Formats: sequence, C-alpha cells, structure tokens
Amino acid sequence: MNAEIISVGDELQRGEITNTNSAYLAKKLNSLGITITSQVTVGDDPDAIVNCIQEVRNQSGLVFICGGLGPTADDFTLPAVARGLGAVLATDDQTWHHLLSIFSQRQIPVQPGNKRQAQYIGELIPNSRGLALGSWIEKGNQRFVILPGPPSEFRSMVDQEVVPRIIREYGIQKMIKTRALHFLGRPESTLMSELKPIMDTFPDVTITSYVKPTNIELRLTTVADDEAEIKLKFDQVTKMILKKEDQYYLGMGEDFNLANRVVELLKRQKLKVTGAESLTGGLFQSTICSVPGASEIFDGGFVTYAAAAKVGLLGIPDSVIKQHGVVSSATAKAMAEHSRRKLGADIGIGFTGVAGPDSLEGQPAGTVWIGMAYKDQEPVAKQLRLAGYLGRQEIRLLSVQYGLQMILQRIGK
Amino acid sequence: MNAEIISVGDELQRGEITNTNSAYLAKKLNSLGITITSQVTVGDDPDAIVNCIQEVRNQSGLVFICGGLGPTADDFTLPAVARGLGAVLATDDQTWHHLLSIFSQRQIPVQPGNKRQAQYIGELIPNSRGLALGSWIEKGNQRFVILPGPPSEFRSMVDQEVVPRIIREYGIQKMIKTRALHFLGRPESTLMSELKPIMDTFPDVTITSYVKPTNIELRLTTVADDEAEIKLKFDQVTKMILKKEDQYYLGMGEDFNLANRVVELLKRQKLKVTGAESLTGGLFQSTICSVPGASEIFDGGFVTYAAAAKVGLLGIPDSVIKQHGVVSSATAKAMAEHSRRKLGADIGIGFTGVAGPDSLEGQPAGTVWIGMAYKDQEPVAKQLRLAGYLGRQEIRLLSVQYGLQMILQRIGK
Repeated sequence: MNAEIISVGDELQRGEITNTNSAYLAKKLNSLGITITSQVTVGDDPDAIVNCIQEVRNQSGLVFICGGLGPTADDFTLPAVARGLGAVLATDDQTWHHLLSIFSQRQIPVQPGNKRQAQYIGELIPNSRGLALGSWIEKGNQRFVILPGPPSEFRSMVDQEVVPRIIREYGIQKMIKTRALHFLGRPESTLMSELKPIMDTFPDVTITSYVKPTNIELRLTTVADDEAEIKLKFDQVTKMILKKEDQYYLGMGEDFNLANRVVELLKRQKLKVTGAESLTGGLFQSTICSVPGASEIFDGGFVTYAAAAKVGLLGIPDSVIKQHGVVSSATAKAMAEHSRRKLGADIGIGFTGVAGPDSLEGQPAGTVWIGMAYKDQEPVAKQLRLAGYLGRQEIRLLSVQYGLQMILQRIGK
Repeated sequence: MNAEIISVGDELQRGEITNTNSAYLAKKLNSLGITITSQVTVGDDPDAIVNCIQEVRNQSGLVFICGGLGPTADDFTLPAVARGLGAVLATDDQTWHHLLSIFSQRQIPVQPGNKRQAQYIGELIPNSRGLALGSWIEKGNQRFVILPGPPSEFRSMVDQEVVPRIIREYGIQKMIKTRALHFLGRPESTLMSELKPIMDTFPDVTITSYVKPTNIELRLTTVADDEAEIKLKFDQVTKMILKKEDQYYLGMGEDFNLANRVVELLKRQKLKVTGAESLTGGLFQSTICSVPGASEIFDGGFVTYAAAAKVGLLGIPDSVIKQHGVVSSATAKAMAEHSRRKLGADIGIGFTGVAGPDSLEGQPAGTVWIGMAYKDQEPVAKQLRLAGYLGRQEIRLLSVQYGLQMILQRIGK
C-alpha cells in the first residue's frame, strides 16, 4: 500500500521550523510495509491545501494531512480539507466544553478561533496531549487522516490511535522489522569495517550505522512475517556483533536511552548516585532527573564550576588542584569521591575538562576527565579526547554519556 | 531564482532520522528571495541519485545535494553526482594528509572509505567542523552544490561558504526580511488576538506566531530592498507590540537565546548567580553553563532533589519544609536565599515543584514554585501552573525559562 504525507504550514515551507512529524510518521508507516510515495509541504493557504487534496485523490490509499489545526487566523486546514473532499465540519460538544473549562480554570479568555479546536470531519481522533482534535475520513477506497502539528500531540495520536487503526483496518501482517543497537566510544568507520564479515554471513539482514549526538546506532533491518524467525535471526546477528564490540555496547531498542537504563539498574541494585560537575555544569544530574522515579536513586549533588567551588563546596584539598591542575585525573577522582561522601551515596561521578571554545591549562577543547568513586573502592578515572571540531554542547553531552557508560560498565549491563 | 534540494540517505527516506538540513537551507535561501521549488529525498542508491540529478538539470538555477559523503560503504553521493554530471572526482592532498594525521593522533586505523572524505568535484568547499569536503560545480547556467549530512558541518558550511558565495555570484539585493520577537507567559491565542489591530495597521508586515518548547515566537515578515526602511517599519511594529505585551517580552532575534541574554546582562553588571534545583535537577545551572564564558558569573551551585538534601546541603531549617511542604513559596525562597549565601553570589534561584508524571503533596504535575533572592533584599517567589498535558521534560525546560525570565525582569532588559 502507498501513502502520501502533506504537511501544512508557512513556517515549514520557509524552513522556519523543521518537519519532524513527517519523518516520525514515515518511520511508523515504513515499519508496516507501507511505502511513502511523496512528502509534500504546502503553506497556510486554503487554495493550496484544496489543490493538494484534489491531486492526491485516487492515487494513494492513505493520505495524511498534518498541521494547521490551531486557533489562530492562519490555521486553515480543517475547512480547506472539508472543501477539497466535499465533506462537512462537525463540532464535538464534549471537547468544546472541556476546552471552555480549561480556559476558565487557567483564567485565559476564549477566542473565536478556539472553537475550531473542537471541530473534525468524518470520525474524530482524540488528542490526549493537547486541544485540537484529529479526523479520520473514508472516501471511496481512500482514507484521509488529519492530525495536529505540535509534535507531542502528533506523535501520541499516531502511536495510540492511527497506527493501531491502520493495522486493524488493513489486516497488516508482513512487516519490515528493525532492531537498534547502541554503541559509544568506537568510531563509525572502524565499527562498520569490523562488521563486514557479519554482513556477508547474513545477506538478508541489512546493517546500517548512524551517528547520533549521544552515540552510534547500528540498525538491523529485515523483512519477514514470522516474529519468532525474525527474533532468532536478529539474536544471532546481535550475538556476533557483541562478540567483537561488547566493550562499547550500551543497549538495544528503538527508544533506548542510556540514562533510563542506568537509573533502572541503580534502582534494581538499590544504589544511590551523586556527582560533582565542572564542564557539564549540572547536565549529568539533570539527565538522571529526566527519568521518572529518579528520586529513588538520586538525592542531590554539586555543580562546582569554579576551582573555588571544588574546594569550598566539596572540600577537595587546594593542593590537589594546585599540583595536578583542574583538568586532571586526580581532580576528577577527588570530585567523585568527595561528592559521594558528602551525599552518603554509593557512586559519585566527577566531571572536569574543557568544553571550549577556549583551551584551559594548555589543554584543547574536548579534553575531559571523568572520575568514578564506587563505594569504598579506590576511585578510577577515564580520559576523553573528543574531536576538536565538536561544539561546546556536543562535548558536554558526550561527556555525560561517557559518565553514564562508566556506571553501566561498573554495575553490569 | 529557483532552487531544489535533494537529500540523500536511507535513514531519511525511511524516516529514521529527521531532515533538519533541508529546513535550515530552505530558510536561508528564502531570506535571499530564492524560491524552493521542490525538496526531494532519495535513498543511498547511486542510480536513484543519478536519475535525480538528471531530472533537475535545466530546471533550477541552484541544486543542492546533501548527505552521503561519509566513509562507509553506503555513502555514494560523490561518485553518483560525478556520473550524473559527467564530471571527474579530484582528491585534495592537503585534506587527505590532515585526515591521516587526525587518525594517527587519535590512534584510529584508516579505512579505505576514508579517502572519499578528501574528494570533491569542481571546486572544493572547506569544512571546518568535520572531515568530508563539499563541492561547488558550475554546469551551463546551473550551480550544483554538494554538502555533507551531519548537521553541524552542514550548517557551518551553508553559513560560512555557500550563502556568501550565492549573494556574491548572483548579486542579490532585494530580500525578504524577518524579525523574531520572543515572549513567555502569554497563551498564543491571547497574544495573537491582542495584536489584531496592529496587523490591520501594517498590512504589509505579516505577523505569525509559533509555539516553541521554550517560549512563543512572533515573526514579522516583509519584502523590501531598503534596509533602513525595513528597520524603521519593524521598529514601529515592535514598539506597538511591546506597548501591550512588554511584561512577557524576552528579546529579539533569529538566534535569540534567553540564557545567552541573561548571562550577558550578568556579566555586564558584574553579578554572580547560583541556584538550588529540585524538579529541574541541574538543568538551570547546565543552561547557564551552556553559554561560553559563564565562568565569569557562575561559580557553582546545588542540586537538592530530596528534602534531606535541601536540609543537609543548603541548611534550610527542617521546620520550613515540614510547615509549608516541599512545593511551596517558602521552600523556593529558602532554596534561593540559602544557595545565594553559601556561594556568596548576588542572585540565588530556587526551583521546586512537580515535574510529573505523578503528583506530589497533592499538587498536580506542572505546579512549580521559583524563588529568587537578590542581594540582601527579601526573596520573592512566583508560582507556575503549567498545563497538565505537558510532559516531564517540557515542564522542567519551561521552569528553567521562567527562572531566567525572573532574573531578566529583575536586572533589566
């Protein structure tokens, strides 16, 4: 089956915002074996939307129209699609009353345009994350699906409503299956060249690599209809890959998140973590706290950006910094150990280094020391030499990931 | 003039990654008055790339081919474009030796595919942020521009090399000008309805709104060739908008960043800031540290996630928390004041609240108190009631922005 995605919005057409929805939807449809024949972007122009709708009619089985459902004067999608399909708008009274109550509770005046957020065509698609409704319209052997533009709303409606309904209505069984494996600390070209023999052994499994801001992702892809057979084949390939690359391996899964994984392991082993952060400036702790339920394994910690704060807040002897420098193994270990003791935690992590753009103590941007103190054991430290062309934020983000990897390696995968 | 953007990559076609480059480039070209006639995505398939190149020949003046310049086996762009245009590949010896020296310094073995990263067609476009070169090819009255896929490399090459060259070669003068104004704390529909009379007064200035994760952006757009005239008109419109909405105004500019602005003001006024963070877990301090040179105004601070850490690390009296609760004005103020005193800073900010998904002390997710202590003045606090459908990260991110806004309002815009 074929599908077409029409994205609506002046800001998309002019490149003022990036179209993340289109990629999100394409990925989901692709996994169902549905081919995206085209992705079109039109501006907030009712005639352009109507033309677009009329062009796609009798071509693709599924047509998605995304965006332009908001309350402001330039949100034209719903009436334009109604015109294009010769359909009528309906208002959902329950949504409208819900909307009125939210506005009154938040003491915001209701605008005439807000009424549009309670309208739909055909059947309504509920929206648990925002105000505008979606629409599901059948017309001959085509389905038109209208979804709102804000990504959090769009995604939850695709996952919770649209994909399950497509699977049900079209009786989809044969699927393109993928498995994502995540690695850190290995250059992409080295990793892929090491895996060449495995790719030759399994010609029906495609292995591709993608450099993400946080790590390198390997993606295994195959087509089949037997879940058990796919799993077996993926397991074989995964085992062969890990035989070579286990020390760089973080974990598996489409939505894999290293912080989630580490917090889960800490919870399971009833271990508390803390940290003292210099170049990362709180990003490690903030990443830990991004995981719901982090309070079980994290009480608090320190941001010690200046050398004086390392001494004053943590009690690191002045002499350690004077003798070894701020960007050193000794300082990283001391930050880890002192924060661990101050918080009475099981694990302390210390980050010190050069986020750039300027160098520090004669060390170039990208030089980072991460210390780890685990219980009463002798603290350890690891040095990163991140590439000089990376930016400040990329260096800070990667440092946090390497810190999490050190914990992962210590407490087991 | 017209332009076409061809994006290359299996992961784009299948929606595995989002095409941010295409939007970035479209925006830059749009501002030069260049119309994007189409944006096409093709997979990592040499024949598909060749077909695509041949289809666009003799249509658009400018053709961009983006991605697929890496060292791995599925990076085909350069040889495919050479074939499509009947051009030859050249190797830049200087780049090749630079690449060899980087690999040897980082102790990474060189792969055969790495050689491709030193190749180009026509004239090379240098890449200061990564390894692969770009290409600029003239063919009849068309220009073909090849750029690498990693966004940080792509963007810096567009800004530093491609845009200046287009302006120079095409003698571009008449431009579409935009001005971005940033607001926080005002619902989009209210803001836009308040501005209706201003839009009627200036029909040749379009005002659109966009809800960003951090704030609401208003975008003024007009077409003209006289810089001074555009500035005058934008200044008039801005003045009228601020007359109504000044208390929600953050600042102006395409790349406006509230943290940058606040750090700049703190530097200028020689004020030091610190904080104690509960629900934000270090995100406020990390945001401050994301600004280069933050060390002038920030020494360090606290993450006090658990109530015990608020007492233990900050010295807040147990009785304050017992009497008022963790999510309270009194606790937020105490966190602000105690962190300020501990660090000897001029400003202390305290964040406490419910990031969700679960409620806390009977308060729903989105309930946040932000305290601010300024020098020896009585600390103040502000309550946020962020919408319940926002996620945990959105609530944490917005809390940080509101905290920065409190500083902005205190020390002047």
